[in-house]
Amino acid sequence: MILMNINEQLQKAKEASYEAMGYTTKQKNDVLEEIKKSMLSNKEKILSANKKDLENGKKKGLNNALLDRLELNDSRIKGMTTALDEVIRFEDPIGKILEERTLYNGLRLKKISVPIGVIGVLYEARPNVTLDTAALCIKSGNVVLLKGDETAFYSNEAIIGAIKQGIKAAKLNEFLVQGIDARKKDDVLTMIKANNFVDLIIPRGGLNLMKFMRENSQVPFIGAGAGVCHTYVDESANLENAVKIVVNAKTQRPSVCNALETLVVHEKIAEKFLPLLEKELNAKNCEIRADKKAGKYLKKWKLADEKDWETEYLDYIISIKTVSSVEEAVNHIRKYGTMHSEAIISESKKAIDYFFKNVDAAAVYSNASTRFTDGGEFGLGMEVGISTQKIHARGPMGVKELTTYKYTIEGTGQIRG
Amino acid sequence: MILMNINEQLQKAKEASYEAMGYTTKQKNDVLEEIKKSMLSNKEKILSANKKDLENGKKKGLNNALLDRLELNDSRIKGMTTALDEVIRFEDPIGKILEERTLYNGLRLKKISVPIGVIGVLYEARPNVTLDTAALCIKSGNVVLLKGDETAFYSNEAIIGAIKQGIKAAKLNEFLVQGIDARKKDDVLTMIKANNFVDLIIPRGGLNLMKFMRENSQVPFIGAGAGVCHTYVDESANLENAVKIVVNAKTQRPSVCNALETLVVHEKIAEKFLPLLEKELNAKNCEIRADKKAGKYLKKWKLADEKDWETEYLDYIISIKTVSSVEEAVNHIRKYGTMHSEAIISESKKAIDYFFKNVDAAAVYSNASTRFTDGGEFGLGMEVGISTQKIHARGPMGVKELTTYKYTIEGTGQIRG
Repeated sequence: MILMNINEQLQKAKEASYEAMGYTTKQKNDVLEEIKKSMLSNKEKILSANKKDLENGKKKGLNNALLDRLELNDSRIKGMTTALDEVIRFEDPIGKILEERTLYNGLRLKKISVPIGVIGVLYEARPNVTLDTAALCIKSGNVVLLKGDETAFYSNEAIIGAIKQGIKAAKLNEFLVQGIDARKKDDVLTMIKANNFVDLIIPRGGLNLMKFMRENSQVPFIGAGAGVCHTYVDESANLENAVKIVVNAKTQRPSVCNALETLVVHEKIAEKFLPLLEKELNAKNCEIRADKKAGKYLKKWKLADEKDWETEYLDYIISIKTVSSVEEAVNHIRKYGTMHSEAIISESKKAIDYFFKNVDAAAVYSNASTRFTDGGEFGLGMEVGISTQKIHARGPMGVKELTTYKYTIEGTGQIRG
Repeated sequence: MILMNINEQLQKAKEASYEAMGYTTKQKNDVLEEIKKSMLSNKEKILSANKKDLENGKKKGLNNALLDRLELNDSRIKGMTTALDEVIRFEDPIGKILEERTLYNGLRLKKISVPIGVIGVLYEARPNVTLDTAALCIKSGNVVLLKGDETAFYSNEAIIGAIKQGIKAAKLNEFLVQGIDARKKDDVLTMIKANNFVDLIIPRGGLNLMKFMRENSQVPFIGAGAGVCHTYVDESANLENAVKIVVNAKTQRPSVCNALETLVVHEKIAEKFLPLLEKELNAKNCEIRADKKAGKYLKKWKLADEKDWETEYLDYIISIKTVSSVEEAVNHIRKYGTMHSEAIISESKKAIDYFFKNVDAAAVYSNASTRFTDGGEFGLGMEVGISTQKIHARGPMGVKELTTYKYTIEGTGQIRG
């Protein structure tokens, strides 16, 4: 690996972005094909780098869940290259004429989709994100700076090495994809302040990372993945559905951002519903932190405090809040939600309408698990993250969300009178 | 005016935004009608407040251009209320189903346009912006915090008073529109850091304001109106067109963001073109700051330095840079442009294509004046500003650009496997 300092890296990224904005669909697909080949021919190298990370992780005492997320093997590498095939099949989001008209004075105006430019992505653990993100950025004509987690340092270095080899084979600008050294905190700070070189940062992570970005970033950013998600079980809910959905949303994969953290339950059905739910949660070893009213109908629980309502557990822990109306449920969600995914379980059209109209989140569900908030599930293909901000993109961000637009205006000497 | 502190104002704005997101088209148009009535019935009050600002402005030594921008009179108030009629006629941008599909598992997914929420707008001098911005935010279901210029303090206070009277008459939430006291710098700081209450800031102004926002804002913002705009006169240009366009772009209204600041000229036509241009610029009393090569063909000029290339003069001053190719012109624009509006004057399709493909700006022109970058001219209607950022919206921002979207997902018990 060539050793460059962060300022050189940023300069190279900006230069590469001017080339990348002109790449044809064929050039972009060809480089993705080359990267796929290179991933496969470098498989052993990647796996042995990954082993090094796993050993370091064990020494550092990472838990099994984290070690599992970190681990690569033959089948996971195969999955990663299959994802590349998917990105190759995506329609090219660049160069689309979004609007076109002739103005009163004869000016010919077009609104055309273009790449954003240089995108910095901050993400954690899973090394497959490195390849997915690089592929999505390449397909959308962007240049990417990848800052993965320190625990995946060697894996990411090896994957980025393979990507660069693929880029070279395709004879494109090798600085299309660069790694930012996760061990150098100052480099990360430099990147998120480099508004002359970086056009967008996508920080993937929890509320602490979002706070850090707000306080430090001088580049526009789209926060992704902070999810204090709620499911509200209305008095009219079908309880069988409700149990099934809440258990799924909480326990099917608790470590992800679209997992449920707080159950909000109407007091009128709490007595019937909570014992049914507790049985299923017990079977999954899920800890319960509830308010007093909910506690009356539970056997094993702790009293929830203010902090519970604002915590993204990402674990087998659920908080339970009782309310006396859908309005109160919505108010709780407004206060503590992170605008990610919120659900209502109800058989009342009126309650669902109220919830849909008044809950301000990227994804609002009726009678389904919040776990579906995902680019693949929504039909956008792979995603670079799930935006919890309102500007530019909300919810899953696929290749289209990595574009912006410009206006071109063709004249024949028009001046303004 | 009720005296509230900034924290109360922010709280009230957030609460109002929950109401505003549910307003019907009729409610929004009715309140705009009431505001129009109220503007007319309060005309004398507004004019006498404006007189106070004008007197203070004269005492402070504001120049005539600024005093002219500040001044209101019968016909300008008429113009402002006519603009309200225009906004009433706009299509409602909210509640549009942008996408709709049934997923493989039967989930019914809709992507629906919704308001952004609470928008803070920082702007300067002209008091008509106060009414225009309030109207556009109301039409798009947003709540707005207006921070105008201190020099227009009394005018803005009177206009906001009239707006509030209209809102009351329509029986909507009076905190839909609030003024932020321009005299209290701490209030402005509080607002741009209040990410729990404010969803977007639109700072309208020059490069210094953008720097201030980058360094201080903790709310996502879309910088608007910093315009170091270029026009490149290619070796193949029709010189008659070129003179006409450059003079228009520079002098038709030099104080606005889409006015030309730097002329970039191909060295091969400099000798023929610059004397023709100088004659016309002289007639407008426009000062010329040029590089040495350009100076050879000019009579009255100063030598431009590095600072000239990065300055938004907003005045009768033009800088002139010679280049030896369209590539060099593009490089100059990349280095010094603010991604606002850039033009090429050329009869060569190849040069125009290169320029269009490689210049990264909100609006890229061939053979026309950059002065056309404007919501009205582009057919978007009135604008809240011209974005020079790449995220969310580029160029003129009308009501559509004041919206975001959410996904609603209707299920029948779906869980993720």
